[in-house]
Amino acid sequence: MEAVKCLSGGASLEANAESVLRAITPSLDPTRHKGQAGKIAVVGGCREYTGAPYFAAISALKIGADLSHVFCTEGAATVIKSYSPELIVHPILEESYNISGVNDEGKRDISKKILSEFDKWMERFDCLVVGPGLGRDPFLLECVSKIMTRARQSNVPIVVDGDGLFLVTNSIELVSGYRLAVLTPNVIEYKRLVQKVLGCDVNDQNTHGELLSLSKQIGGVTILRKGKSDLISDGEKVQSVSIYGSPRRCGGQGDILSGSVAVFLSWARQCNLAAERESTISRTNPTVLGCIAGSALLRKAAALAFEHKKRSTLTTDIIEHLGQSLEAISPVS
Amino acid sequence: MEAVKCLSGGASLEANAESVLRAITPSLDPTRHKGQAGKIAVVGGCREYTGAPYFAAISALKIGADLSHVFCTEGAATVIKSYSPELIVHPILEESYNISGVNDEGKRDISKKILSEFDKWMERFDCLVVGPGLGRDPFLLECVSKIMTRARQSNVPIVVDGDGLFLVTNSIELVSGYRLAVLTPNVIEYKRLVQKVLGCDVNDQNTHGELLSLSKQIGGVTILRKGKSDLISDGEKVQSVSIYGSPRRCGGQGDILSGSVAVFLSWARQCNLAAERESTISRTNPTVLGCIAGSALLRKAAALAFEHKKRSTLTTDIIEHLGQSLEAISPVS
Repeated sequence: MEAVKCLSGGASLEANAESVLRAITPSLDPTRHKGQAGKIAVVGGCREYTGAPYFAAISALKIGADLSHVFCTEGAATVIKSYSPELIVHPILEESYNISGVNDEGKRDISKKILSEFDKWMERFDCLVVGPGLGRDPFLLECVSKIMTRARQSNVPIVVDGDGLFLVTNSIELVSGYRLAVLTPNVIEYKRLVQKVLGCDVNDQNTHGELLSLSKQIGGVTILRKGKSDLISDGEKVQSVSIYGSPRRCGGQGDILSGSVAVFLSWARQCNLAAERESTISRTNPTVLGCIAGSALLRKAAALAFEHKKRSTLTTDIIEHLGQSLEAISPVS
Repeated sequence: MEAVKCLSGGASLEANAESVLRAITPSLDPTRHKGQAGKIAVVGGCREYTGAPYFAAISALKIGADLSHVFCTEGAATVIKSYSPELIVHPILEESYNISGVNDEGKRDISKKILSEFDKWMERFDCLVVGPGLGRDPFLLECVSKIMTRARQSNVPIVVDGDGLFLVTNSIELVSGYRLAVLTPNVIEYKRLVQKVLGCDVNDQNTHGELLSLSKQIGGVTILRKGKSDLISDGEKVQSVSIYGSPRRCGGQGDILSGSVAVFLSWARQCNLAAERESTISRTNPTVLGCIAGSALLRKAAALAFEHKKRSTLTTDIIEHLGQSLEAISPVS
């Protein structure tokens, strides 16, 4: 089965996204126990943002992960917990706003405590999503940098979106050369990344070549450039996902995508692709497979939600269609 | 009616779980008043966990208990109350995190206050569920140990799950010899329990004999070992429940089970099994009957939810099918 077609050298072909999704989605086996279908953690949620980390974390569950955690500030935690009893929410992050009177030593202590709280959990996670609703508080971002460094040391994959991309664009060494990192920039985030890493403006005449260069320049980090077509590259080749989709651009869809990519890349890393030995799927980077599947699923769910709700479509409507979309592409039986 | 079949000596037969459920479910009689169908209390809910105690407590109500209480920390209480106006939530527990500046004497005072708050309520409860979302804070667990001791002195049955099993595994004397205790370990919790109590690793060649030994060793405490088939023993015999079920392993299903077992064992203790005099049901330990019925109901509800939601099934979806499942097995009229 030639499921993922591509040309090297910058040109791309549309990925056979549905085949990828089917190949990496694990079969449901009654002998498996809790956790084996995936344990995801989202790092995000601050004074201003509570919806984004919720969207990412609940999407992971609705796709089939067994456990979904959120690490956020205390104020955000109360709200995120109240959105859904299904999530495990850790109120461990701190913002400058709440510790303005604390001196440098005190801040170091707080930072240490945050890291040690996170360390208790980290090794359990199959994938981390860093960024949804993270905000841009310098102290909080400094702590999250340390969290990312720890995750990297433990070989836990990291999907970076939203304000996580702001952090990473300014500190590219956090992900540089880490093959288990995925960046999911939108148009504006991509522009900043290109400017910072390639030192030039986005070149619309050489979209594929530029994405390839960008990924290579960051040491083979996988990049999912969101747009009318989603473009995906790990520096080896560029693939696109254009099927389905909706014209509605309500905020929050990127959060669904980051949670979905986290689940699918975990599955792609775990699954036995032996049956696909003859295809290019088994030779494709699991982070790339995760991006292809996540992109296709979001686009399908967004299309279904838009059919029902038209202009009124919100992110929660799309989340409600994740299960049906997954079932349509990769039926349980 | 030979509803519960079993062989002694370690071998087991499948329990006739639907008959058990029908035999112990009380008839709905307009002359009865509030509370007679069951008053359940869940001890759990801390900084990180609010979903688990909610799942256990709301499941008890959805099955037919009249009143369902939760005893948790103050922060957790606000969130759990917000999930549902049906629950009575007592914000009485404390974690080290919030009392780090308090000295030993102060901590003793706090512990005393928690216990005296709990004492006001305890005798009203038909069953306690200890563990869903309890966390592992040492101070909190110390207080919960005292709560369990009080409940035991008052002959209130206790279902122990989640972090309650962590507590009990390390302090087996809390339940040892208490015939009204039920432990509901999953694969990992069971492994820890076997290692601690029997001093060996789990033996998959002698599943039934091992469960029998484990229960005997803890003095006849009833154990429900969760898995593809649920295995139940009070040290006398082993019975299994394998009907229905779903391959989805999302976190939270164990919480539904603990709340369900609490209700059913309360009913089994109260009901008049005279009509079953000739059957083995009337000769079976009510805690075992509660486990059989609770297991069957969860498995039925999970199966129904999975039919609708497939991979996307979450614990809240299963809870929404409890009523329909109960009605399917044991119709009101």
